[in-house]
Amino acid sequence: MGSGFGDTLAARVDERESQIVLGLDPDPGALWPGVHEAEGATRGERSPTWRTAVAVRVHCCALIDAAGPACVAVKPQLACFERLGAPGWEALEAVIEHARQRGLLAIADGKRGDVPVTARAYSESLFERLRVDMATVNPLLGGDAIEPFVTSARAAGGGVLLLVRTSNPGAADVQDLELAATDRRSTAAGPFSANTVWERLALLVREVGAEGVGEVSGLSDVGAVVGATEPRHLARARELMPHAVLLLPGVGAQGGRVEELAAAFAPGRAGGLITASRSIAGAHLATGGDPAGAARAEAERLRAAAWTLGGG
Amino acid sequence: MGSGFGDTLAARVDERESQIVLGLDPDPGALWPGVHEAEGATRGERSPTWRTAVAVRVHCCALIDAAGPACVAVKPQLACFERLGAPGWEALEAVIEHARQRGLLAIADGKRGDVPVTARAYSESLFERLRVDMATVNPLLGGDAIEPFVTSARAAGGGVLLLVRTSNPGAADVQDLELAATDRRSTAAGPFSANTVWERLALLVREVGAEGVGEVSGLSDVGAVVGATEPRHLARARELMPHAVLLLPGVGAQGGRVEELAAAFAPGRAGGLITASRSIAGAHLATGGDPAGAARAEAERLRAAAWTLGGG
Repeated sequence: MGSGFGDTLAARVDERESQIVLGLDPDPGALWPGVHEAEGATRGERSPTWRTAVAVRVHCCALIDAAGPACVAVKPQLACFERLGAPGWEALEAVIEHARQRGLLAIADGKRGDVPVTARAYSESLFERLRVDMATVNPLLGGDAIEPFVTSARAAGGGVLLLVRTSNPGAADVQDLELAATDRRSTAAGPFSANTVWERLALLVREVGAEGVGEVSGLSDVGAVVGATEPRHLARARELMPHAVLLLPGVGAQGGRVEELAAAFAPGRAGGLITASRSIAGAHLATGGDPAGAARAEAERLRAAAWTLGGG
Repeated sequence: MGSGFGDTLAARVDERESQIVLGLDPDPGALWPGVHEAEGATRGERSPTWRTAVAVRVHCCALIDAAGPACVAVKPQLACFERLGAPGWEALEAVIEHARQRGLLAIADGKRGDVPVTARAYSESLFERLRVDMATVNPLLGGDAIEPFVTSARAAGGGVLLLVRTSNPGAADVQDLELAATDRRSTAAGPFSANTVWERLALLVREVGAEGVGEVSGLSDVGAVVGATEPRHLARARELMPHAVLLLPGVGAQGGRVEELAAAFAPGRAGGLITASRSIAGAHLATGGDPAGAARAEAERLRAAAWTLGGG
């Protein structure tokens, strides 16, 4: 036990009175009006991809300025920048820096995962170059492949979020497979047993994160991604991972409801981070009005709903 | 059944008389001598990272020129480029283009995987921007998350390689978990049953790839990554995935031996692709001599050993 990212996050959630994470999933075909005309996006000296990347950056920064005040963090979806190649990667770095200047934490959503030597290269990219506070990691390759991410995150004062139960329907194909009796118990997780693959991943989060529990918050620097689309998983996830920060995608566009997420907040308000992207960036499509105003209103609505629910 | 990437790959293997994949995992601290002095790597007008990325590009192109003639494909490790940000991504695109001009196929090793809408963004990045022939994909998120990669690969005349059993020691933590009797059988895979998570992933490869089996080669456009470090897995992998191209990492530096890989080649020479990176790029460290000559000799040694073994 000691200080660590769990304590940092809890302090930031208190300070901003928000558990909302603003997802940044820019689709070049659905950016806010006007961004394609922004300075830099119209200059002809660079390729069309560079101009698109400038528009993506302008869109994301405008979204941060509008909805950011109701949020505690941004979560750029790396795929949406990576598909624009080098210009997209430059936009990503600029957007993360903009969020940082606005007092927001940054969670890189890249779901990276590889053998140890390569995991170290990804960790370098995430925690030294992009300098994000947290990163999502795919745990399929096991403990030795997760360890470099945790080591790098701790060295940078940040944290890691392992995929445990994702929000897509196909998640059941692998994550919900039932385990044989012999493999239900892990050696390090005490009296708990895992019935499924995802429950075993939850015990992995518990094991890897045991050394990183902050003494003020009781929250670890190793958290988990648990889809908000199936609330029945949340109580079980919380039981298996009492100290984990749970990142909860799937609210809004995917059908999850804030009111069903109470179990996530059992260890305190920072125990659950609610991520929303399309429902905020596209709020004007449902409510009318200007995109920035609608985004701010929707982010504030989510913030207030979660804050009321997630007592301390 | 029809034509598809399996047939393309088999023809290319025959043409080049090689089943060797040249891994490109550039470490800026261990590039070949002289590359830091190459044109562009010394010019001061750009940042140190840009100069490092130029050196990485020069190194990879020199390695391709040296060892490429003994290989059928290159496999850039995306993490090693991504850690250099936008300049690294530019180097990646240039290296892939260089390999293509040398008649080599390109396999993007990024182990991406995400919910369907995001998987489509990654697919766009891989098969439309980088225009690679194959990409490694992490299947933890299940069928609906894999489908966009397969669809994009097919549209581009390429293929996908799903992680099934990786070569790192920690792979056992999740991939080797034993399944309960009720979850051992899949509906679509016929009489086969899966005892472990990785065997279930193998059946997923079989199911997803069933429609993509080339009528000439009998090889599917959906293959699998199976570590060469544990040859006992190979026979079982081949039994569960009779039409899959198996990408075999772990030969050389990680201890796998070419002579133990015969099961991979059961459906024909293109049934197994042997990937080697450090053992080729760093061959001069063991044998002495100039890096290019040593790399070419090691790649040719591997090529001949596999070609003799992998009869058609």
